[in-house]
Amino acid sequence: MQSSALQQLDLFKQASSHSLNQLSQAFKRHFYKKNTLLLDHHTLALTFLYVINGWVKLFKENANGEEIVIDVLTKGHYCGDEFLFQAEETDTYSAQSISDVEVITLPLATLKRLLRSDNGLSIGFLEQSLKKRRNMYVETEHLNMKNAMQRIGCFILRLCDQHNGQKLTIHLPYDKVLLAARLGMRAETFSRALKKLSKECSLKIHDQAVEIACRDQLVHYVCPSCSKTFPCETVPKAFRI
Amino acid sequence: MQSSALQQLDLFKQASSHSLNQLSQAFKRHFYKKNTLLLDHHTLALTFLYVINGWVKLFKENANGEEIVIDVLTKGHYCGDEFLFQAEETDTYSAQSISDVEVITLPLATLKRLLRSDNGLSIGFLEQSLKKRRNMYVETEHLNMKNAMQRIGCFILRLCDQHNGQKLTIHLPYDKVLLAARLGMRAETFSRALKKLSKECSLKIHDQAVEIACRDQLVHYVCPSCSKTFPCETVPKAFRI
Repeated sequence: MQSSALQQLDLFKQASSHSLNQLSQAFKRHFYKKNTLLLDHHTLALTFLYVINGWVKLFKENANGEEIVIDVLTKGHYCGDEFLFQAEETDTYSAQSISDVEVITLPLATLKRLLRSDNGLSIGFLEQSLKKRRNMYVETEHLNMKNAMQRIGCFILRLCDQHNGQKLTIHLPYDKVLLAARLGMRAETFSRALKKLSKECSLKIHDQAVEIACRDQLVHYVCPSCSKTFPCETVPKAFRI
Repeated sequence: MQSSALQQLDLFKQASSHSLNQLSQAFKRHFYKKNTLLLDHHTLALTFLYVINGWVKLFKENANGEEIVIDVLTKGHYCGDEFLFQAEETDTYSAQSISDVEVITLPLATLKRLLRSDNGLSIGFLEQSLKKRRNMYVETEHLNMKNAMQRIGCFILRLCDQHNGQKLTIHLPYDKVLLAARLGMRAETFSRALKKLSKECSLKIHDQAVEIACRDQLVHYVCPSCSKTFPCETVPKAFRI
């Protein structure tokens, strides 16, 4: 990836020319088909991964062998940096493509070396990391305050927002089983809640397409239990899905 | 606060002598009684707050006027840094003491200026911020995978761990209404779940004291739904409550 292209990304925009050149040489570009294991939990703890295009699922297994979806990444999202300064390999997880994807990767050791010598690069990572923390506070708030129907509705509204609020038919970006896991509910709960939400807010669902008859109706149902107000302009794009 | 004392804190251990001196002069020390509003949501977005002793609740209100507990901080925890690089005042919250507290505060503008000129300080903040993110992933996992009884049990187990696992009577650090909110459940759910958990795992509750007859019984009930294994040595102390 060219250093001029890297500099366009928020994460690297304050990095020095030297760092950008080094990063440009060290990043490897990969194209993977849907459902490929990109990084197992050992490799992930040694690797920085940045998504250029497509969708990536981060997951781990609990002691019962059940899959736990930690996060779903898309364009502009990244992972692995949590392990930059960690001596032991703990709390790690694996990364799998859930669509065809284009990603770039870098050994964490290289990134760490550059961070140690370039304050602009460190500030860029700190800034994005603080943004992620704010967004995780919002997620925690949602898990605490919204019911299943409202959480699904919120997810749908964010997709509307990405399309400038004009289109009233949106497409769920990945399948319902994963969507349920991402929203912290079981698949059966998701199906029941989506059905009830459709009735309550006049939605029509055809496979992964959702037709919204009246967006305001959905907003009125979803948003009162949140401290934000629609269209959540303050939620960075990187968090919108 | 003396610069030598600041350097003992993980957050500042990589800072330059110059930064430590500047921070030492700029930090203000405060002692507050229980139930004092330390920072309203306007001031919080301009202030870095670090807890020396005691307990601080971070909270906001949703559109219905209900209180949402965002986090509970204790010794070594801090907040406000999320707003370092944010132009608009959004997603902010307020801070209130829930015990007598000792805290130090600093204008974010001063901190930002020092971060811009001291990579060691930036790396310290980045490192702690990445730790917090890992811990929030664990919280999200718990909210998704554990039932109310397991989440209360997990909280109790972490208190045991803080006391080196020897004491089998622990004291809940703050009242049950707040504890319920912190664990993402309603007060009635908390009461019912605590009662069921006590029966299931042979606990005796007297006000805020919890007597644990057999810790292993509690571990067997709480931990199988988690990807961590007791005693969660990898969870930094700062997260333990």
